[in-house]
Amino acid sequence: MRATTIHAPGDIRLSEVPDPTIEAPTDAIVRVTAGCICGSDLWPYRGENPIREGATIGHEAVGVVEAIGSEVKDFRPGDFVVIPFCHCDNTCPDCLAGVQSACPNADGTSSGQAELTRVTQADGSLVKTDGMPDDALVPSLLALTDVMATGWHAAVAAGVREGSTAVVVGDGAVGLCGVIAAQQLGAERIVAMSRHEPRQALARRFGATHVVAERGDDAVAAVMELTGGIGADAVLECVGTHQSMDTAFHVARAGSTVGFVGVPHGVELPLRRMFVRNIGLAGGIAPVRRYLPDLMERVLDGRIDPGLVFDLELPLDEVAEGYRAMDERRAIKVLLRP
Amino acid sequence: MRATTIHAPGDIRLSEVPDPTIEAPTDAIVRVTAGCICGSDLWPYRGENPIREGATIGHEAVGVVEAIGSEVKDFRPGDFVVIPFCHCDNTCPDCLAGVQSACPNADGTSSGQAELTRVTQADGSLVKTDGMPDDALVPSLLALTDVMATGWHAAVAAGVREGSTAVVVGDGAVGLCGVIAAQQLGAERIVAMSRHEPRQALARRFGATHVVAERGDDAVAAVMELTGGIGADAVLECVGTHQSMDTAFHVARAGSTVGFVGVPHGVELPLRRMFVRNIGLAGGIAPVRRYLPDLMERVLDGRIDPGLVFDLELPLDEVAEGYRAMDERRAIKVLLRP
Repeated sequence: MRATTIHAPGDIRLSEVPDPTIEAPTDAIVRVTAGCICGSDLWPYRGENPIREGATIGHEAVGVVEAIGSEVKDFRPGDFVVIPFCHCDNTCPDCLAGVQSACPNADGTSSGQAELTRVTQADGSLVKTDGMPDDALVPSLLALTDVMATGWHAAVAAGVREGSTAVVVGDGAVGLCGVIAAQQLGAERIVAMSRHEPRQALARRFGATHVVAERGDDAVAAVMELTGGIGADAVLECVGTHQSMDTAFHVARAGSTVGFVGVPHGVELPLRRMFVRNIGLAGGIAPVRRYLPDLMERVLDGRIDPGLVFDLELPLDEVAEGYRAMDERRAIKVLLRP
Repeated sequence: MRATTIHAPGDIRLSEVPDPTIEAPTDAIVRVTAGCICGSDLWPYRGENPIREGATIGHEAVGVVEAIGSEVKDFRPGDFVVIPFCHCDNTCPDCLAGVQSACPNADGTSSGQAELTRVTQADGSLVKTDGMPDDALVPSLLALTDVMATGWHAAVAAGVREGSTAVVVGDGAVGLCGVIAAQQLGAERIVAMSRHEPRQALARRFGATHVVAERGDDAVAAVMELTGGIGADAVLECVGTHQSMDTAFHVARAGSTVGFVGVPHGVELPLRRMFVRNIGLAGGIAPVRRYLPDLMERVLDGRIDPGLVFDLELPLDEVAEGYRAMDERRAIKVLLRP
């Protein structure tokens, strides 16, 4: 089959690789109908994470079950499924506690930028739709595999509540989905931090009531003015750099929580400030499976439309151009059709 | 009046200093009937925090109101009061959100190792008993000014719940009070980490169901064995060193929260682990006033007896010996009578 591989920073190829096979009786093979490129795929692309030459890349996909292992009970070939980027058995103590991303019994992630992908612990990992979904819903269902669930996790971790003021740091797909999450969880004021006009517009469409285009101290000052000098009730940190984390802790009010979902790179936490002002940190890799059934309902009944984060659609053949477009911020998020 | 002053590492004196006076109409002056030495007083004593030569030291006291400013409404001379180590107006947005320790309208702490002490924002800060309390209750009431409220804050921040497994890192007075808090909040298993037999015994008396005497990797292994390899539901970090924080994050289960109340010294957080395993960090300086009315009830009706952490009582004259005893771990906590 054809799958996306990375060979060096900036070197993305569509390669011929062996088809995935059922390796454990709990596995399933899914034929990908739509995959996409994640902001976290850009870390190795930019040389900021180590690369194993020729490794497949990509971890977000939806598609149709092609084959199942002998112990898979809840899925059949032909089912349309959403694949959480981290697999899980959904029965172990960690999963039952809602931390499916830490499940010790599932193995890695699917390679979503490919024609076929293997899902471990299929019964625990997958969620299916009732029949084949309308094609117009596919982008939003695809967004649930990672970015929408991750933005949701940031909002839950930050403790967004009815009537609260939430600040979203980061205007990538995850940050924009964080705006959706804050809106759905009842935040009254949602401040999106963004300097990019198309992303500002999308943030407003998703429910942002304020946009702060400044960065650093000026951004902090803007939020402080908005909140009467008190700071935000909940802060969603959706980037993972030192600067974004620092901004997050400086706009968070005393006693609040920064929900963080951006893979941390070079971050040094302001521990003294956290201690003196009782600002907590919560979050991490999103337990996608925990939120997936609820989020799927919200997509199917039209309450949320996270698929709008895909502003470029390409055939899988052009995956390298997709990476370039995201790297150069010409696209927020790229959808790939095999 | 006589007050404790610090002049250099290890150099504690009882000195003659000017009596405190009403400086703002919201102030009160309290005649101290009992004060004590805090673990955090040992940081400057050991030269690990900067010292202003001749500065007063100590911040925990109970006593009788001696004088009030013109705007103090709720207290009269003669009232017996418990003084939270951090003052607060208890009416600002931060106080109303339960973060009285971040109140911007109160000024510092009382100097509790002295004959008299000034309390700012007296109406917001102080809590009085109904008449003069039985002398036997004074140690427990004194413990509420800091250590008991701080241990309680660790348990609340860590999210201790009915039926949960809580680990308390640290067997100082705060850690021991953390055991009390975990017990009161319904933890089913409470693991006290302690190598010191008298402290182990007190931890068990306060409700610890298990004691782990090991440190580092061995301590982690012991907790993992106790929890079937999953880790603790809630971890109370009551020390503030790098090693204690590291242990805390390694015994915490995925998705849990480390509640931290030990002033952090030289701590580097395991951010990658926090992210991958969704282990949060919450806590900081305890908002004593938030918990004080409830904790006072628990003391008065005998549900808790945190005064047992005082295992040495000295006249204020002998304050220097009190510091030595705590520094050498001959005493858990020293009560001082002016």
